[in-house]
Amino acid sequence: MEWQDYLTQNRDRYIAEMLEFLKIPSISAQSEHETDVKMAGQWVADRLKQAGLNHVEMMPTGGHPVVYADWIQEDGLPTVLIYGHFDTQPVDPLDLWDSPPFEPVIKQDRVFARGASDDKGNLFSPITAVEAMLKTSGKLPVNVKFFFEGQEEIGSPQLPDFVAQNKTLLACDLVVSADGLQLSPDQPKVEIGFRGNMALEIRVTGPSKDYHSGLYGGVIQNPIHALTHILASFHDTDGRVAVTGFYDDVREPTPEERQQLAALPMDESELATHLQVPELFGEPGYTAVERGAIRPTLEICGVEGGYQGEGIKGIVPAKAQAKIVCRLAADQDPEKVSAAINTHIRNFTLPGVRVDVINRDGKVGAYLMPHDHPGNIAAAGVLERLYGKAPLISRCGGTIPICSLFLETLGVYTVNFAFSYEDENLHSPNEFFRLESLDRGQRGYVMLLEELARVL
Amino acid sequence: MEWQDYLTQNRDRYIAEMLEFLKIPSISAQSEHETDVKMAGQWVADRLKQAGLNHVEMMPTGGHPVVYADWIQEDGLPTVLIYGHFDTQPVDPLDLWDSPPFEPVIKQDRVFARGASDDKGNLFSPITAVEAMLKTSGKLPVNVKFFFEGQEEIGSPQLPDFVAQNKTLLACDLVVSADGLQLSPDQPKVEIGFRGNMALEIRVTGPSKDYHSGLYGGVIQNPIHALTHILASFHDTDGRVAVTGFYDDVREPTPEERQQLAALPMDESELATHLQVPELFGEPGYTAVERGAIRPTLEICGVEGGYQGEGIKGIVPAKAQAKIVCRLAADQDPEKVSAAINTHIRNFTLPGVRVDVINRDGKVGAYLMPHDHPGNIAAAGVLERLYGKAPLISRCGGTIPICSLFLETLGVYTVNFAFSYEDENLHSPNEFFRLESLDRGQRGYVMLLEELARVL
Repeated sequence: MEWQDYLTQNRDRYIAEMLEFLKIPSISAQSEHETDVKMAGQWVADRLKQAGLNHVEMMPTGGHPVVYADWIQEDGLPTVLIYGHFDTQPVDPLDLWDSPPFEPVIKQDRVFARGASDDKGNLFSPITAVEAMLKTSGKLPVNVKFFFEGQEEIGSPQLPDFVAQNKTLLACDLVVSADGLQLSPDQPKVEIGFRGNMALEIRVTGPSKDYHSGLYGGVIQNPIHALTHILASFHDTDGRVAVTGFYDDVREPTPEERQQLAALPMDESELATHLQVPELFGEPGYTAVERGAIRPTLEICGVEGGYQGEGIKGIVPAKAQAKIVCRLAADQDPEKVSAAINTHIRNFTLPGVRVDVINRDGKVGAYLMPHDHPGNIAAAGVLERLYGKAPLISRCGGTIPICSLFLETLGVYTVNFAFSYEDENLHSPNEFFRLESLDRGQRGYVMLLEELARVL
Repeated sequence: MEWQDYLTQNRDRYIAEMLEFLKIPSISAQSEHETDVKMAGQWVADRLKQAGLNHVEMMPTGGHPVVYADWIQEDGLPTVLIYGHFDTQPVDPLDLWDSPPFEPVIKQDRVFARGASDDKGNLFSPITAVEAMLKTSGKLPVNVKFFFEGQEEIGSPQLPDFVAQNKTLLACDLVVSADGLQLSPDQPKVEIGFRGNMALEIRVTGPSKDYHSGLYGGVIQNPIHALTHILASFHDTDGRVAVTGFYDDVREPTPEERQQLAALPMDESELATHLQVPELFGEPGYTAVERGAIRPTLEICGVEGGYQGEGIKGIVPAKAQAKIVCRLAADQDPEKVSAAINTHIRNFTLPGVRVDVINRDGKVGAYLMPHDHPGNIAAAGVLERLYGKAPLISRCGGTIPICSLFLETLGVYTVNFAFSYEDENLHSPNEFFRLESLDRGQRGYVMLLEELARVL
């Protein structure tokens, strides 16, 4: 039997299996879901064994576990390591979901569930691609290692140590990441860069409890006032980050890079309509594509303090807090940026309250790979066959920590080869994955491994 | 029987009744408690009938109801209207309460419950004082009207219309308010002024839902950024309100007023220790007492937006919002201040989001009464007999909307005669009321009515 026929014959089973996988609420950010993340890892490990991989193990990291598997035939063959993650983002605001996030439903050939697009659907494709090859021909064109993690959505805090301690196990000639996007169902892309990521929380503590604003308003510092003074100071009114030193090491795009980005489809007014905002907004001097892909940002992702119920409550609140996520550009050192922000917070701390900064682990530098690397050329060829159209060269504003980590620790680049799309509500309510992307992913992975056997 | 003996003999029953009253969760700010507010009003009406008042009625206002009752003997007697409120503040943060807020418990002669001190305990005293006089002597020394409301904690939005439409019913020579504070169990005061109150909410709307900050961070305005830009602009770093025109009409204190306030006990470092803040903080040029009692303030009482769960979520949030309460000084016009803040918000609105302001009803101007008014002289005499110490003249930073309203609409002043203390966690978790304050309140109201019969 040809692998193509095997995939076609087993399609219904694959979809049923994917739904089972999506039922596991493997939210890595919430400790109550720790066991669920482990269950998702176990599901992946079992599925790899079923696919015909004989060396499969779930390994501890000190945090959420990883799943490793390999199929090594000959020392002479090049080795490709396939990466993905089985953890998901949190689900709230829950009231905006049309169906429960961990009760997957299929509507119009799309499967709706948290994690469907990011990254369970994508992760599933190479497993089944390898299964199809092993069950039909009994072998693979290259040595394959699988490395799937359960902490991508929290910035992979334990992975730097894990990868450093397992260099031999993970050694390979190229990484292929099954976590990422294509431009549209009609237009593929080769993703050559990601922004880095670092996060921190600011906690402002005032009086020991909420106090009557009639009695203490004007007498003591209000923690929300002190917090918003810090938060508002992070940007100027044009949208530039106003933290001293923030932009110091940012690599400015070359004319060639700006040309590549300008070739990407982008209708600003259409995007504003789609997002339902009055207009796009951001750092002057850069296009919307540049701002979203290669310029660093500082976003306040959450803020809370005081009374949040119905109506009004006249208090000076006890505390207030905010969560900050920075996306980092090429050449920015996450530790240096973190230090600059910490200094900025201290400089903007008002009297009368205590300000604590919780610097989150899992800082990640930006990732950038030559667009003409043999791995990218191979991927581009396969994508052209899958979509009937040559891919554009692209940069993504999101963060895939493992790309920078593998480059720094193992000295290998990561080719990004995944089949999600921006409209699939990644990190948002009603996340979904197109079933046709499972087909493309499965065929694509067989073709890519065959192609890499030739070029590596 | 003397009224003193009647009160002593019925003390246990009064405490049991007060506990029943405190079990009703009459939170006026939350629509789910609308029926509870009404039930609290019904409890008060029933209790007034039981006390011997023969004309008692609960009256609709368009919002939460009011309870009116009277005992009118002779046209020649002066008429005193006694005021209080049977609604309470919300209860959150619930986790900081040692016992459920609406399951009152007595510990060390204090009753702990939401509303115990503000204002159910105080409201109960004059009802039972009148009962003691009617049951022992069959009459009262003055005509008495009771007027108890159920919307004080939300700024009494329907009361201006109600009072204007019921001028004859409410007509009187003096109002006595059973809502307020004494300085300490050892030191009484005569409260001659309150700050005014106005509230608004700011809602900033960005994209239609939370979006991935890797994909859209830097591309669109973040609603939290736009909100904190507005919020931080409300004050300068010294704590002055930076809204143009905010201080325009504020009456500066006279040397005599500053002397009266300086005579009030205040140890700034002790207060800071009690509140558990590093230091007091506020508008330069004014003492802490002045800042808390007679200077206007703008407090952000609540803020929220984006992800508030555990860990970090990389999003550009869909929306963010804040709640603002201003305490107003003498001569400030609430409508003018509200207009100035609305203009300020428009001036500090950044592009890329929609900003809506919800101006809350129930704006109240500040209240100020001559300290040597006959009503205050009478109250001072009674307080001196109750405490064994002459009262200090004081101003309170809180707001009792009805004082300004009665002055403007009925042309009568309100003497403040109540027995709560600042340490009783008004508006905070673990609110409590001292049982000895019930005794003082009961005796005090009998003595005050007798005294007012002489001076009015």
